[in-house]
Amino acid sequence: MIETTIATIEAYARRIRPEYERALKEIVEIPTVSTDPAYHADILRGVDWAMAFLKSHNVEAERFDTAGYPVVVGWMRHPQATKTLTIYNHMDVQPANEPEWITAPFVMETDGDLYRGRGTTDDKGPALAAFYAALAAREAGLPLNIQFIWEFEEEIGSPSFMAFMQANKQKLHTDSVVVSDTIWINRGKPAAPLGLRGMLTFRLLLETGTKDVHSGLAGGAARNPIGELCQLITDMYEPRTGRIKVPGLVAEAVPPTEDEIQGFLASGFDSNEFKRAHGLKCLRTDDPREVTQAIWAKPTFEVHGIVGGYVGAGIKAIVPPRAEAKLSMRLVPDLQPDQVFDRIQAFVADNNPDVVCEKIGALEPYQGSAGGPFADAVRTSLRFAFGADPSFVREGGSIGAVVTMQKVLGCPIMFIGLSLPEHGYHAPNEHFEWSMAEGGMKAFTRYFELVVAMER
Amino acid sequence: MIETTIATIEAYARRIRPEYERALKEIVEIPTVSTDPAYHADILRGVDWAMAFLKSHNVEAERFDTAGYPVVVGWMRHPQATKTLTIYNHMDVQPANEPEWITAPFVMETDGDLYRGRGTTDDKGPALAAFYAALAAREAGLPLNIQFIWEFEEEIGSPSFMAFMQANKQKLHTDSVVVSDTIWINRGKPAAPLGLRGMLTFRLLLETGTKDVHSGLAGGAARNPIGELCQLITDMYEPRTGRIKVPGLVAEAVPPTEDEIQGFLASGFDSNEFKRAHGLKCLRTDDPREVTQAIWAKPTFEVHGIVGGYVGAGIKAIVPPRAEAKLSMRLVPDLQPDQVFDRIQAFVADNNPDVVCEKIGALEPYQGSAGGPFADAVRTSLRFAFGADPSFVREGGSIGAVVTMQKVLGCPIMFIGLSLPEHGYHAPNEHFEWSMAEGGMKAFTRYFELVVAMER
Repeated sequence: MIETTIATIEAYARRIRPEYERALKEIVEIPTVSTDPAYHADILRGVDWAMAFLKSHNVEAERFDTAGYPVVVGWMRHPQATKTLTIYNHMDVQPANEPEWITAPFVMETDGDLYRGRGTTDDKGPALAAFYAALAAREAGLPLNIQFIWEFEEEIGSPSFMAFMQANKQKLHTDSVVVSDTIWINRGKPAAPLGLRGMLTFRLLLETGTKDVHSGLAGGAARNPIGELCQLITDMYEPRTGRIKVPGLVAEAVPPTEDEIQGFLASGFDSNEFKRAHGLKCLRTDDPREVTQAIWAKPTFEVHGIVGGYVGAGIKAIVPPRAEAKLSMRLVPDLQPDQVFDRIQAFVADNNPDVVCEKIGALEPYQGSAGGPFADAVRTSLRFAFGADPSFVREGGSIGAVVTMQKVLGCPIMFIGLSLPEHGYHAPNEHFEWSMAEGGMKAFTRYFELVVAMER
Repeated sequence: MIETTIATIEAYARRIRPEYERALKEIVEIPTVSTDPAYHADILRGVDWAMAFLKSHNVEAERFDTAGYPVVVGWMRHPQATKTLTIYNHMDVQPANEPEWITAPFVMETDGDLYRGRGTTDDKGPALAAFYAALAAREAGLPLNIQFIWEFEEEIGSPSFMAFMQANKQKLHTDSVVVSDTIWINRGKPAAPLGLRGMLTFRLLLETGTKDVHSGLAGGAARNPIGELCQLITDMYEPRTGRIKVPGLVAEAVPPTEDEIQGFLASGFDSNEFKRAHGLKCLRTDDPREVTQAIWAKPTFEVHGIVGGYVGAGIKAIVPPRAEAKLSMRLVPDLQPDQVFDRIQAFVADNNPDVVCEKIGALEPYQGSAGGPFADAVRTSLRFAFGADPSFVREGGSIGAVVTMQKVLGCPIMFIGLSLPEHGYHAPNEHFEWSMAEGGMKAFTRYFELVVAMER
C-alpha cells in the first residue's frame, strides 16, 4: 500500500488544477439537461465529450446505448490489481431557467476559487475531482482497477439504468462502489449518507373545456380547472404542515429511531444556517428535531410547478380550459413508489375522476449502513482530507442508480460527497469551489489506498 | 320622423358593406390590448386611427387624454336636432395568446359572411355597425345629434373613465345612452340586458424563498408557495360548486326574484347549446334554473390564471420560491367591489398573512329597468331588425363605463348588443358576422327614429 502524504496530493492538485478547470469548463458548457427533449443533441454532445475525455487520458471507454440516453463507462486497469472499485457520477443536469442567474448558466464563470454554472456541483465538479484522484492513484502505481460509470439520466430518475446494468452485469463486475453526488450538512462538517429517499414524480392534468371562455358569460356555470386542481392538491396534503392526507401512505413510512434522531441533532445542523444556505425566508417549523426529520427521514409531498389560464401582465377575465401541476413524493423506507402511485391514482379517481394522473418517474428509497470496513474507510478518508469526522446521516435526496447498483452488483455502496448546501443543487447560480475539489482528490486518494489495503 | 323601410336599409347596407369591412379590418389589425403594457404603442395607434376615421366621415372628433389611455369622442350634429343620443363602444381588446387560434388573431380573416380576429365581435364590429347606422341616419336627414364615446380601457375595468366623465360632464351632455357591447342568449333570440354584474379583480402572491431549492435537500421543511396558494384559494371558495366561502359575501348578494328566474327560463337558454357555444366539456350542473342564475344573477369566484415553479417539459425537482394567482369576483347588486375587496383582504390576512393580496380593478354592478319608453324603443327596434322580441335578462359580464355614465350623465342607458355566444368574447378564434352587422344597422336606424319621435 502506498500512503500518499497530504503534501504529495497538494502538489499534484496544484499541478492538475488548470487541466481540471479546463475540463470542467468544457463539460459545464455543454447543457446536458436530461428532462427537456429540447436538449437531446446537447446530451449526445456530452456523451461524445465524456468518451473523448476518458480516451485522451488513456482510459478504456465504452458507450452503452439504452432506450434513453447512453451511459459512458471507463476503466483504468492495473495489471497487479486484485480489486475493482467503481466510481459513480452523473453528467446530466437540471434545467437552468431561473431568472435569478447572475451569469449565463451554461457558461462556466471562474471567480477566484469559485466555479459558477449549471452542473458545477451537481455533479460534474465532483465527477472530475474523483477522476483526477484516480489519475493520481494510477500515476502512483496503486494496484487497483477503477471503473467509472457516468450516467446521463440521473436527473430524470435513471429510467434506463436498470436495463443497462442487467444487460452488462458481467462486464460491470466490481467489489464496491463509491457515489460522489451528495451534500454536506455545512461547510465544516463532512457528511456521508447512510440512506437516500426514494421518489415518485407525477403530473395532474384537468381539462374542462376546449378554449378560454369569458368569465362574465360562462363564469358560475363553467367548471374552473385551476380551482379544482387546487382542491385536489389540498385534499392530498396539508401545505402549511406538509402532512400527507392520501390514506395509507404515512403508516407505511418507517419513522427514524430515537438514536437516528439524536444523530441528526448531533450532526451540526442549524435551522438558521439552513435557511440562509437555501435562501428560504421561513420554514414550516424552526425546531431542529422536526426539520431534520422532515428533510432526511420523512416522506414529502411537493408541488414543483403549476400552470393554468392567463399568466401575462394584467388580468384576462377568462375561465381557462385546462390546468396542470407537476408533483412528487420523496419516499423513505418502506414506501415503494409503485404502490404509492397506485394509492395516489385511486385517490385522484375517487376525488376528481376527470383529472388525469400520470406517473413520470419512480425511485425506491435506499438504506445503507454506517458499519463495516468501507464505512470505516470513508470515515478515515474524509478526516484525512478535511480534518473532521463525517456524520453518517440519511440524505433527503434521491439517486436512482444507487438502489439499482445495490440490486444488480450486490456489493457495498458508499458515498463521498463534495458539495455544500450553499452550492445550490438544482438552484440558480449553482457553483462549486476548488477547495472542495482539492479536498475531494485527497479523500478519494486515501480511500483508494484503504480499499487496496482492506482484507478480502 | 322618417320611417326608413327595411328595403332602404338593406340597400344602404349592401352599398356600405365593402367600406364597413375595410374599416373593420384596419382597426382589428391594430392590436389594442389594454391589459398588457407591451401594446402601449398599438393602443395609441388605435386612438389615431379612430380620430382619423371619424374625421374622414366629417364627424367632429376629439381625443381626451386621461391618466391611462385616451377616450375618443365624435359628434354628428344636426341643426334642427333637439336631442342628443350617445353611443358607447370600446376599441380595446383582450389578449390573444391562446394556442387554439387557427388564424393570426390580429389579421382579420374574411370567410364568407364571417370576420375572424381579436376584437371583431368585442367590440369593434358592433361599434362600426352602430357608426354606419348613424351615418345612414345623417344621410336621411334625421334631426338627431349623435355622440360617439369610444373607450380604450374597457377590458381593464375603465380605470380612467370616471375622471374623464367628471372633467367633461358639460361637453358630454346627452339625453340617453345606448351601449353596444353585449351578447344574445342564442342566435334566434335577441337579448337586452337590464343588469350587468360588477367585478373585482385581484391577485394573490406568495414568496417563501428567494430561489428554487432542491426538493430532496429542503423538501419537507421548506414552505411550498404553490401548495399554500392552493390552500388559500380553496379556503375562499369551493371549486366544484362555486360556493363562496369568504364570510359575509353571499348574504349581501340580492338573489333574483322568482319572476326573474321565470324570465331566465323563458329566455330560450339551453344548457347543451351553451356548452357547445363555449366549447365546455361539462358544467357544474346542467339544470337550467341553476345555470342561468349562476351566469346572470349570482356572484362568481374565479381563478383566471396561476403560475409557480417549473412548468417546462418533464420534471424539475424543486421547491419554488413563489407562486401567483389572478382572480376575480363578478358582483351582483348589492355587492360593492371595495367592500368585497376589504373582506377578501381581511380573510387572506387571517388565513395566510404572508400572502400579498392586491386589487387590480373594481366595477360596481349595474341594475337597469325593462320599463319605460327607451326599453320599448329597444324592443321595437330589435323586433324590426331581427323579427323577434328581445328577452330582458341580466347579463353576467361587466362594463365598467355603464355605472359611471349612469352616475355622471344621469340619463337612461339602454343596450343593443349584436354578438352571439359562439362569437367567442375573450376566446380564441373570436369572430363576428355580416348578418349581425347588417341587423345592427337596421336596429340602430329604427332606434334613432324612435328616439327622435319620443315625447320629451
